[in-house]
Amino acid sequence: MSRLVGKVLVAQGGGPTPVINQSVVGVALEARKFTQVTSVYGAVHGVRGIIDENFVDLTRETTHNLEQVSNTPSSGLLSTRDKPDEEYCERMFKVMQAHDIRYFFYVGGNDSSDTVRIVNEQAKAANYELRAIHIPKTIDNDLEENDHCPGFGSAARFVAQAFGGINLDNRALRGVYIGVVMGRHAGFLTASSALARKYVDDGPHLIYLPERAFDTDKFLADVDRIYKQHGLVTIAVSEGISDASGTPMITKLLGKEERDSHGNIQLSGTGALGDLLANTVRDGLGIKRVRSDTFGYLQRSFMGVVSDRDAREAREVGEKAVQFAMWDDVDGSVAIKRPVLDYSVDYQLVPIGNVAGKTRHMPDNFINAEGNGVTQEFHAYCRPLLGSGMPESHRLRAPSVAKILHV
Amino acid sequence: MSRLVGKVLVAQGGGPTPVINQSVVGVALEARKFTQVTSVYGAVHGVRGIIDENFVDLTRETTHNLEQVSNTPSSGLLSTRDKPDEEYCERMFKVMQAHDIRYFFYVGGNDSSDTVRIVNEQAKAANYELRAIHIPKTIDNDLEENDHCPGFGSAARFVAQAFGGINLDNRALRGVYIGVVMGRHAGFLTASSALARKYVDDGPHLIYLPERAFDTDKFLADVDRIYKQHGLVTIAVSEGISDASGTPMITKLLGKEERDSHGNIQLSGTGALGDLLANTVRDGLGIKRVRSDTFGYLQRSFMGVVSDRDAREAREVGEKAVQFAMWDDVDGSVAIKRPVLDYSVDYQLVPIGNVAGKTRHMPDNFINAEGNGVTQEFHAYCRPLLGSGMPESHRLRAPSVAKILHV
Repeated sequence: MSRLVGKVLVAQGGGPTPVINQSVVGVALEARKFTQVTSVYGAVHGVRGIIDENFVDLTRETTHNLEQVSNTPSSGLLSTRDKPDEEYCERMFKVMQAHDIRYFFYVGGNDSSDTVRIVNEQAKAANYELRAIHIPKTIDNDLEENDHCPGFGSAARFVAQAFGGINLDNRALRGVYIGVVMGRHAGFLTASSALARKYVDDGPHLIYLPERAFDTDKFLADVDRIYKQHGLVTIAVSEGISDASGTPMITKLLGKEERDSHGNIQLSGTGALGDLLANTVRDGLGIKRVRSDTFGYLQRSFMGVVSDRDAREAREVGEKAVQFAMWDDVDGSVAIKRPVLDYSVDYQLVPIGNVAGKTRHMPDNFINAEGNGVTQEFHAYCRPLLGSGMPESHRLRAPSVAKILHV
Repeated sequence: MSRLVGKVLVAQGGGPTPVINQSVVGVALEARKFTQVTSVYGAVHGVRGIIDENFVDLTRETTHNLEQVSNTPSSGLLSTRDKPDEEYCERMFKVMQAHDIRYFFYVGGNDSSDTVRIVNEQAKAANYELRAIHIPKTIDNDLEENDHCPGFGSAARFVAQAFGGINLDNRALRGVYIGVVMGRHAGFLTASSALARKYVDDGPHLIYLPERAFDTDKFLADVDRIYKQHGLVTIAVSEGISDASGTPMITKLLGKEERDSHGNIQLSGTGALGDLLANTVRDGLGIKRVRSDTFGYLQRSFMGVVSDRDAREAREVGEKAVQFAMWDDVDGSVAIKRPVLDYSVDYQLVPIGNVAGKTRHMPDNFINAEGNGVTQEFHAYCRPLLGSGMPESHRLRAPSVAKILHV
């Protein structure tokens, strides 16, 4: 048991997820039980809020409202794209010292975990006792050490429900449909579109992931084959697909790059990639009805589409983070393990260096040999993460009527 | 009571909705009760299926599966964009005669109602007894005589839930967000984004509709004003917005047009309009973080987002169509009236000429004086149509902590 008396600070970083507030509320409710904790602060706008001393006192928030916020998508404490360097972390650390912060919990992806690592090292160097724990979240599902990440299941559910509807729409009015899904380096979210399949001719028929080099000629040959077979094609594409040289397809199209403060090329918030690919199919194959949608921000913050399992786990990683800090008096990153595929989970605290700044990719056994689809192993992996009560499509099975005039 | 003995034919036309199968199932289940009805046929791919004699026998479909299909989005009988002329209708009519079709129900928008009108006139001219009834559906909500149209409530719910999430996302990572919503000539669906507002600073802060001329300078001034006020702007835009001369903004951008078989300019299935507007804001106001999403096909066929009220009404208009044909022995178009704003409905059969080929627009009292938003009258009109159990956002209300270092 930690004897460290002081304040808890919790913050959220990076892109929101539909369940990220569950983790903050898990921290707040659990931390409020410990007498060593003098107050539970939340930093507004992530690390930026720490620099600015922009804190709210979650000890003075009602339990009911915390529960309500936990069921609201996107970062309730607001977020930031700031990527702290050593000097930035030093300023954060100074503020933490001034406010007697002794427990720091940061909910975020691999950039955020790196921030936790730096701050923790600075505290050690200054001989200032600080428990610092990274709590995982990302719809990209790309954190090392984790079987899957909080936020992914709900976003995957959105993508699967979207493609379920697209299957029905594209069947009613046939053509080629391209849906562009978030995912810079990891294809998990795009791959989850495969869970929309119920009938043998259901799409997505083709799935293109950042883990495999995108080849336009191969793409056209794939589309042509499926179109001749079914008279329609439904395609899922990761926004991050790149050619064999590693150049993102969107950069090829735009002829320019827009970068965020992390130096990442902007992939979301534009329909350009989908439009490029649609034109490629139109021009290359002469198919008239080609449509593309870019799912954009809907997939990470849509209200009302949440995996109940994902929500529960997002709550638990927050709660566990506090328990590790309090009962075990240790630092690190909370990781979700899955001892049984279908289905149980276990939470472990892993060394933060195993997670910080690293990216996990789709393992080879999740991707088919042709590099344009997923395997049954991926289905088995992903299905439980979508949660209960997935809507299901049904088709008419009425027999055909014999023709009279056209016999 | 109609004494006309023969078959019932039901078909679906135009773009799908999340509840269009409710109407087909309403027709099928009700028609199967009448002894005059020898069989209930469904035409596959709308009017195209009639020309091709491509029918399925819904009399041989289980009640359970019909119920399952009724809860599945998009046209279960599949659809078509064919727009029948006189000669096309004559061929349809010949097929109907050959199969002893005596009751024709066509679920569709204003193009589809015009088809029903022509076929019915041809039957009269040929002295062939035929009951022909148009059953309304459209996510655009643009049919005359109807207070609102089946399909709209569910699509509006999707748009409201989407903007509810966007509000939270754009608040967490601030910038300008532009969401492009379906709606060629009528702005109802785009306007429904307003129902996402809960807190005073919630968006959409600006809503641009096809009913008002779009002026780029005015648009930039609007965005600039809101951005200075809130540090973020959330904008909803109809895909069909046009300038004062009536030229669609998307045509201006693309420098070319793609038209469907109805002669309509293709607006959906491309992110071009959103990208144009985003660039306009970036270049015109120098704001760095500007994002656009085009909701595309998700809003009309997404699985799992349905207004329960919309689903019930879509079922009822199908059932009522059969009852009008059988009990009252009349032709026309089923229309939804709303005697009490909040809330009751009444179904009437109106002359098909009042609906066929006509487009209803947003009434003036639904649009604000500046032409960049909606009124409380629209809120009161739209709210009940979204159905029960709308997800609601909640914010932290924890008090701020006094600064120590930055005092």
